[in-house]
Order: sequence, then structure tokens, then C-alpha cells
Amino acid sequence: MDPHLLHEPHHDGSALHLDPETPAPGWPVTVRLRTWVGDPVEAVWLRTTYDAEPVYHRCAEVARDDAEESGGEGSVWWEGELPVHNPVTHYRFLLAGADGRQRWLTAAGVVEHDAPDAFDFRVSSHAPPPEWGREAVVYQVFPDRFARSAAADQRETPAWAVPAAWDDEVVFEGSDPRTPLQLFGGDLDGVVEHLDHVAALGVSVLYTTPVFPGESNHRYNASTFDGVDPLLGGDDAYQRLSEAVHERGLRLLGDLTTNHTGDTHEWFREALADPEGPGRGWYCFRADGSYECWMGHHTLPKLDHTDPGLRAAMTEGPESVVARWLRPPYDVDGWRIDVANMTGRLGATDVAHDVARTVRATAQAQRPDALVIGEHNHDASSDLDGDGWHGTMNYSGFSWPVWSWLRDEESPARAFGRPLPVPRRPGPLVARTMREWTARHGWRATTWSWNILGSHDSARIRTLVGSPEQHRVAAGLQFTLPGVPMLFAGDEIGLEGVNGEDARRTMPWDSPEAWDRTTMETYAALARLRAEHPALVRGGLRWAHVDDDTLVYLREHPAGSVLVCARRAPGGAVGLPAAALALPALDGAPARPVGDPAPLLATEGEPAPLVVRDGWLEVPAGGAGVTVWRL
Amino acid sequence: MDPHLLHEPHHDGSALHLDPETPAPGWPVTVRLRTWVGDPVEAVWLRTTYDAEPVYHRCAEVARDDAEESGGEGSVWWEGELPVHNPVTHYRFLLAGADGRQRWLTAAGVVEHDAPDAFDFRVSSHAPPPEWGREAVVYQVFPDRFARSAAADQRETPAWAVPAAWDDEVVFEGSDPRTPLQLFGGDLDGVVEHLDHVAALGVSVLYTTPVFPGESNHRYNASTFDGVDPLLGGDDAYQRLSEAVHERGLRLLGDLTTNHTGDTHEWFREALADPEGPGRGWYCFRADGSYECWMGHHTLPKLDHTDPGLRAAMTEGPESVVARWLRPPYDVDGWRIDVANMTGRLGATDVAHDVARTVRATAQAQRPDALVIGEHNHDASSDLDGDGWHGTMNYSGFSWPVWSWLRDEESPARAFGRPLPVPRRPGPLVARTMREWTARHGWRATTWSWNILGSHDSARIRTLVGSPEQHRVAAGLQFTLPGVPMLFAGDEIGLEGVNGEDARRTMPWDSPEAWDRTTMETYAALARLRAEHPALVRGGLRWAHVDDDTLVYLREHPAGSVLVCARRAPGGAVGLPAAALALPALDGAPARPVGDPAPLLATEGEPAPLVVRDGWLEVPAGGAGVTVWRL
Repeated sequence: MDPHLLHEPHHDGSALHLDPETPAPGWPVTVRLRTWVGDPVEAVWLRTTYDAEPVYHRCAEVARDDAEESGGEGSVWWEGELPVHNPVTHYRFLLAGADGRQRWLTAAGVVEHDAPDAFDFRVSSHAPPPEWGREAVVYQVFPDRFARSAAADQRETPAWAVPAAWDDEVVFEGSDPRTPLQLFGGDLDGVVEHLDHVAALGVSVLYTTPVFPGESNHRYNASTFDGVDPLLGGDDAYQRLSEAVHERGLRLLGDLTTNHTGDTHEWFREALADPEGPGRGWYCFRADGSYECWMGHHTLPKLDHTDPGLRAAMTEGPESVVARWLRPPYDVDGWRIDVANMTGRLGATDVAHDVARTVRATAQAQRPDALVIGEHNHDASSDLDGDGWHGTMNYSGFSWPVWSWLRDEESPARAFGRPLPVPRRPGPLVARTMREWTARHGWRATTWSWNILGSHDSARIRTLVGSPEQHRVAAGLQFTLPGVPMLFAGDEIGLEGVNGEDARRTMPWDSPEAWDRTTMETYAALARLRAEHPALVRGGLRWAHVDDDTLVYLREHPAGSVLVCARRAPGGAVGLPAAALALPALDGAPARPVGDPAPLLATEGEPAPLVVRDGWLEVPAGGAGVTVWRL
Repeated sequence: MDPHLLHEPHHDGSALHLDPETPAPGWPVTVRLRTWVGDPVEAVWLRTTYDAEPVYHRCAEVARDDAEESGGEGSVWWEGELPVHNPVTHYRFLLAGADGRQRWLTAAGVVEHDAPDAFDFRVSSHAPPPEWGREAVVYQVFPDRFARSAAADQRETPAWAVPAAWDDEVVFEGSDPRTPLQLFGGDLDGVVEHLDHVAALGVSVLYTTPVFPGESNHRYNASTFDGVDPLLGGDDAYQRLSEAVHERGLRLLGDLTTNHTGDTHEWFREALADPEGPGRGWYCFRADGSYECWMGHHTLPKLDHTDPGLRAAMTEGPESVVARWLRPPYDVDGWRIDVANMTGRLGATDVAHDVARTVRATAQAQRPDALVIGEHNHDASSDLDGDGWHGTMNYSGFSWPVWSWLRDEESPARAFGRPLPVPRRPGPLVARTMREWTARHGWRATTWSWNILGSHDSARIRTLVGSPEQHRVAAGLQFTLPGVPMLFAGDEIGLEGVNGEDARRTMPWDSPEAWDRTTMETYAALARLRAEHPALVRGGLRWAHVDDDTLVYLREHPAGSVLVCARRAPGGAVGLPAAALALPALDGAPARPVGDPAPLLATEGEPAPLVVRDGWLEVPAGGAGVTVWRL
């Protein structure tokens, strides 16, 4: 039998392979590796770095499934003890073959050459993030566009704003000065009024973009952190929202710009007014009186986290912004941190890790199960595996590969974060991308990071992929790959938008006939599936089959594994070696065979059953869509 | 024409591609990229990260060699401006094809998927290392085994030592207690007596392993840093050596254990004697009175670089060990830092970068052109591109790939740093390894790091590769790949040894008939070649052809490029597309054609001329060996 993808040596950071998943500092963890009986592995070493010195620990064979019923084609399980000497400990496996062959298993897969440590596995003895953050289904609301309560009609439009009626078209060209000023008047009581809709989707976390006052519709240019924008209903409305969310057993996340404020912010006005004052150092003023700002936007002056006063006000201690909002009346459960990647970084200065560590420590001192997610739209790997951000908005490791697999080449969707539109790429490149990013971010951070199909910063997924069917393929990936699904409100009903600003169209509450209810039901079904199957939250990830148009993968968990087949185009049946799918029998019992697995969900058509014959598990032929089976 | 390896888009950190190579902080550098006329690249962007935010700069086509004489198969040159905003700025290229194809050029090569930043190019605005460090040919002397002066006969063998005569066999089993104690009595005046030999090899830097007193033959367990071991001749002998070295225009490097001392060290004895004293904090004592030590060896207690007293004594300021030895009578030109990877790291504590930065700053305050090389036998990438170590002992990026290409499978050479002997690997895996490590270490650190074929810690290269001919292939690679050749004394005459201890055999000065003079002459010729051709010191690196048994590469430099063909076995002629070899014509002049290149050196046989015909440059067939031509 030729080696199959499922015959590759496998390890990941999930419970089947790492025990315990979250070790205490200095304690060893048991690390397991699976190889194929047909792969002549003679010996396995666990290689770790101990204070940056490579050290090898021999692994022992602990189980071998070469019984007749598996056709002599089952798995071999190896175990080793990994001392977690450093808070974040790196490791990989050295596999010695009978023929003198030496291979490495890294978190990005098997390599035959002596590669650098860039893709080593990592295990952390830092306290794990809160479990609810990993179990979550997050729903992102952009308050100006989600819903208007009756009270909104009574509010005066401020001088800076360009008023818009709920059904008006969104101005979305960056060159149009109205783009950040067009105010539709959505408010927090509007959100409260629609929590039934949110809850029916199976959402567990409501995340709103900023609610601080700010002279823009996006409010990322806060003029204070001391209260909620009266245009949204003020502190009282926020309290109503917070209570309503919590009454339903949901969680609430705020959105904080730690990198900058608006130039109307009280701190900045004081700093401008008094160049000798103590608040001057809270911003990054240059000698000539000009100041650093976000990406050249003078309305967004950059904060200086090396200043103790700023830190006390913003991130440190119980009176900081970070802490105060975790208490009533706001009572948020954590923060999504805006521009976390740039926060604390400026030229030769880099205190980004200190900021992340401080934000997390402050939040958890106030609320032990607080969650902090850092925005990072590119390579967050160096910022994620320590004691700072619990996860990131995983554009690189999830959004980009999914977008590039499913992109409709005729789509008007515009470039995001790159000078070129998303390219259309075949499955093998997409899987490669996912494997490398999972490796770089590390297993823990990957499973706590947000799988995003779109946000207020990008084109809508529906527009990018061009059809409801392809949209549901994307949603299927979002809920079944490791990571936390985050929906941008409106995704579930098929809203469109060619860029981030256009994606901020208002929710058409009064035009229910325009909603894509099939897709909405798919989201809800996916959320139920995720809630019911621990494998989708905590299971490992093994790639089972990859071709241009098909991605098949396993989420393995002792409580029951699931098999996912995603197709972007119709394709034939896919055979998988059944013996390689059997769960381990580490207690000496015979390996558990693959039974007759019941289909759990299909985004299109009737879920077809899996068939096992002659040692092969056959994933049935099908059209574009995602199908999930229990193994 | 099918794409050839030389048709790959190319950039590296050398002068042809980066101008200036060492930018001032905040100033832009001009970055150049070469593509092939036959590759339909429509546009190129330079992608950098600016305070960790990805930013794109459009590159412009500045030259295109599609003239008839290049058969329409020449190069296109692109240029962009890279702002060096952060002290170490990362970048890569995005290449847009006519067909919507998007590729990335990273420092490890072209990828078609959206890969993490792990292999981004890097440019540093930190002050560059001293130029002599890059131009160097380093000769490592292990003082006990290099040469005995007449004075050695007058010295008493200390109580701890097991005396040995110069012709005795070296005890090299780790399990034999005599291994570290066997004393042959080599001394510093012995080194002085043989400087003619050293200079004749073309060596420019003499590096000795430690000369501090220590109760072992290797002296990595210093009992003081205040003077030279009397067994070596003491301070006076060191002064004579230093003066003799400098009189010849050579440089001298010391070897300092910043990670630990011996347990006989005066600092440690004081710390043991007075648990309440100020010196206790210089070591890593545990609450129970035991102490951290190197790899479990209780005779090597680990220093604590978080202690201000230890830093003042060891690394900081003019009275520190680091500074004092840079002044007469010792007058060393810099340091090789032992176990640099572990220094300052212990569990949750990591001040390794601070130590590196401090050692460099202290050394350069004393001697502006001081060199500091950190020992790191594995992945030094995170320790190299800052303002700390100038380079490393490049076992990972040079030794391992060379060893694994040339290893004699029957060799008795033992494992080094791994539980398995070096595997034998084919050329493509070897080149892949080199590309990835060059990328991870960064261009600057790679060119200042040491290309090591063996050291006092590893088997001798002659033993590993099994024949003089293969040994000379290794030497050819050592002097023609980017990096600084470091010879372990005795390599040049073909000394043998199955492990590091066995490699420490005495230099057989009295048995010149046993010397491999052919190999010695090859080393000298390679050193002359390196001195005469800036391309071998400062040139870029372009891979031209790789197969299992052949590595062909270009070292490109405006002052004249060289072409290197290394073969581990006889092989046929290799054709290279001549137009792709032409140097750029960025000033508007026609591209410089490849002329009739004169062979410069061959480690075996007569150097054969290159032939250009029908647009192809033909590297002639040949046996195992390295041949170098000027282009």
C-alpha cells in the first residue's frame, strides 16, 4: 500500500497527544505520536530545547495495531515525557528509520531535511485562557448599523455627522469624506431588541466594536474612555445590554483601542494644551511638536505605553480603563484589543509583550475568567504563545486560506491588507497555509483564536465567494476547523459588501424577505453541532485528503471524533484507509474500529452515509458543500 | 524554455540587492529583485512590517535584458525603497503574474502559498560587525594539544591531572574519568613557535579555547578569570602570544564561559562559603542550597546574569572580565562566547539578549572593532539579528548540511548533539537546509558566522567523510559558501577523531611524514582565493544547480562573481542558462555577458574551462571535488 496522507506521522496539541494539555510549570507532560504500521520507524526521540539547548528524550512504543482486522495497516503509538522547563517549551520529533533515514515531525508536517525550529510544536505552562473563550461562537456587532431603537429618533445628529436613513446606501469609498461620517443611528437598545435573533443562531458571545464616544461612525477614535456614547444610549443603555446579554447566559466583549485615541480625546487635548504637563508623555510627540499616529492618520494619535501615567490610566490596576469596564455598569467579560500588533511598538521601542501581559493580568485580576483577544491581521506568532493575548483574529491562518480557496474570480470584492485581490488557490496550497499558521501560532492560541470569514474591515464573505452555496462551504469550514467562529452580524442572512466599509450595511430587519434563511439555518445548525461535539472545540486536526477542490480532515477526540469533507466543486468519492482512522488503544484494549458512522450535517442536500469496505472508508461523491460525520 | 533554478526570482542581502547593505536607522534602503524575462511577472511589491503592521511598497522595473544576444532570456530587475523603520526590519516580495497568480519571494525561496513570516528577509540598522570578522579565516587552537614549548618540561603536573606524553593516545570515552584530566602539556609559547605554520595557511584570526586556570584539560571550568593558567605559561606567555599574533597582522580571540564557571572558581567558593554574602546571588542557588549547573554537571555552576554584582564583574563596564582582556597584557580582539545559547536563560528567566547586548557594548566600548561570536549549536536565529552576538558557530546552517551531504556511511564518527549519527542526505535536502538556515539567521549574521567542519566538540571532518578527496570537497564548501571558515587546528593535515574528545589529538609536529600535505595546500589555496575575491566574502548566493551529488552556486558581487561546482561523486556536465548569469546593467549599459571564464581553483585534478555555447554555460563533467571559476 502506498503511503496515504493519513499514514503520515501525526501529533498535535490536543488531549489525545498531550496529557495534560496545560501542564504546570516544571512538570512533565506525556507526549504521544502516531505512526503507521507500514512506516518502518525504528525509534523516536522527542527533541526539546531546554534554556535554548537541544535535548533528546527517547519515546517508547506503547501500542501497535497490526491485527488482522486492520489488515496489518493500523497505527503505532509512541510516548515520551516532555519536561516543560521553560514557560513556553518547544519540541519536535526525530524519527529513525530502519534504513538510516532520519525525518523530523514538526507542527507543519514531516520534513526530510534538518530544518530550523520555526515550526516546532509548542506547549505552554502559562495559565490557559478561559474555557468559554474556546467554546464560543462570537457575533460581532457594529453598533451604528445593527439596529435602531425608538429612542434613536429622539437624538440630535451631531455636527460632525452626515445623517443617513436606515435604508440609505452605505458610502464606502475611502476617498469620499462621508465614509467615516455617515451616521445611521443604530444604538445599544436596538441590539437588546434583537438578542432573540442572536441567541437563535447559537451565538454565545456578543462582541461590539467600540461604544466610546468618537467623532466617526466606527468610534475607533475615542474622545473618552470614561463612558458610552450618548448617541448609542449612554451608560444606561450599555448596562441594559450587558444585563440582557448575561441574563441569557451569553458573554459580552468590548473593543478597546490601546494603540491610539481620537484627537478629540480628553487625554490628547490636555497633552496638546500643556506641552510641559504630565499627560504629554502619554502620546508619542516628536521634538517639533508633531506626533506619531496610526498609519499616518493625524486624527489617531498614538499612545506611549512606556509612560507610567498612561499605563496606570489605560492598562494597569483596578482604576485603569481595562479593569473598570469589567465591572458594572459595563460588566464586560473581556476585550477585543484593536491594533494589538502595533500597540507598544514604535521604531526601536517594543513593549508590545509588556502591554499584552499587563492587559491580561489586569483583566484577570478584575475577573478571573476574562478573555483578551488581540487584533493582528498578519503574523501574530511571536505575540501569541506567552502570557499576553489569549488569541487573535486569525485572518492569516483561517480567513486568507479559506478566502483563497473559495474566492469567485469574478467577484467585485476588493483587496484587504494587500495591494491585490485575494487570489484563487488550489486545496494543497490552502492546506499548506493552514498547517504552517497553526504551527506558528501554536495549538493553544489557534484553538482560542477567531475564525473569521469577514469583519467590518473586509469584504463580506458572500460577495467574495459569489454564491449562497459557496458561502455555506465557508461557514462549514469556520465551524469545523480548530478555532472560534466569529460572525460579522449580517453574514448569517447573506449581506454583501465589496470592502470593509461596504460590509457595514444596515441589518434589514424590515425586509425579512431579503434574508437568506437557508444560510441562516446552516449557521444555527453548525453552532448546534459545535456545541454537541467536543471534537469540534477540543479535538485535534489530522488532514485526511487534500486535492484542488476537496479538503477532508479529522477532528479527533476521546469523546468521539468527527470527519469533515469540504468541497468547493463536485467531486468523486474519496477513499481513506480505515485502519488509520481507528482511535488509539493505549489501555491495551483492541483498537476501536470505525463503525458505521452516522452523518451529522450537510450544508447541501442529504447527508450521505460513509461506507467501509475492504479496509477503506469511502467518503461519498458529492457537490460543493461541507458534510460532517461522526466516527 | 522550462524554468531553471537560475530563473527563480532572486534577492539576497548582498550589495547587488541591498543598497546600502547597512542602513542608518530610519533611512530607506534600495532593494533589488531579479526575475527572468520568461517569467510573466506583471508587478512586484515589497512587503515589510512597520511596527508589526504589513505595509506594501510598489517596486519599479529598472532594467530588462531581453536583447537578442541573450536570446530573449535575460533578467528583469526591479527596485523598491524599503524604509528601515524598526532596527531589524522584515521584508519579502509579492509577485503578481499576468494570470492572477500571486507568489511570495522569501529568504528561503519562492512559495505559492500565503506563508508565515518565519522566512522573511531581514535588514538591520544596528551597527555592523567589524569588517575583519567577515574577512577572517579562523584557526582554532586547543592549547593542551597544539604544541609544547621547552618550558613545559619544567612544569609540575598538578594533582588533578593525568599526565600524558605527546605521542600518547587520547582517552576519549565519556565514561572514562581520565578523559577531561589527561594533560599533554601544550602551552602558549608552543603556539608562538608555530605561528609560521598558521600564517602559511592564510589564517587571519587565531582563536584559542579557554586559557584560564581550570582543573581539566579543556579549561571550560575556570577557577578564575583573573589570569592565564600557569600551566600554559601564565600571563607573560599570553602576552608573548598576543604580541606575536598582532605583529603578524593577525587577530586574537579568547573564549569565555559566560554561562558558568568551574566549581573551583574563586567566586563560587566565596558563594559557597558565605550563603549570606553578596556573591551568593552570582550563581543560581536553590532554596535547599543546591545550585543550577550546566547540563547537570555539578562542577559547572551556572551564573546568574540578573545579579548586578555578577554583571559588573563579568560583562559590564571597563573592569569586567569582558573588557579587561581586551586590554594589554592580553589584548584580545574579541571573544568567542561559550554556551551563549543558555547564558542568561533558566526556566522562566530569559535575559539572554541583555547579556549579548551587554557583552557586545562592553567589548566595543573598550575596542571599537571588537568581535563577539556566540556559541549556539542549534537554532540561533532569535539571538542573532539584534545588537548582540555578531555571529554564531554555524553548526546548523553549515556543518550539518555539509556533514550530511558528505558523510561516509561506514565512518566510525559518532553522533554530535543528536542521539543518532549524521545521516547521509542528497543535494536537494542539503541545499534546502542551507537556504532555510540562511533565511532564519539573516544575511548579515550568516556572513559573519563561522563555517565549521569540526571543532573540539565534534568528530574530525576527515573521519566523518572518510577520505582526503571528500575532505577537500568539504573544505571547498567551507571557503566558498557565505560565512567565515573556521579550521580546528589539525584539520589541515588530516587529523582524525571519532568524537570531540578524540578530535583533540596532539599536533604531530615531529611526524611531518604523516601530514596530508595535499589537503594542507588546498586549504592555503582556498584562503588565498577568498582573500583575492570579494565575491567570496561579500558576494550574494544564488543556487544554480542542485542534484543528489552536485551543488552549483554563484557568489555574485559587482567586483566580479565566482561560480562554484561541488561534487561528492563523479557526474556529467551541467548546463546553466547563460543569460541568467549576466550581471545587472542598472546604469542603462547593456548587460555584461558571461565571457570565457578562467578557472581559479580545483581541489582535484586540472581545473577545466567553462564553455558557453548556444546560450548555455556548460559546467564540465568531473569527479568528486570543488572547482571555482571567475565569471
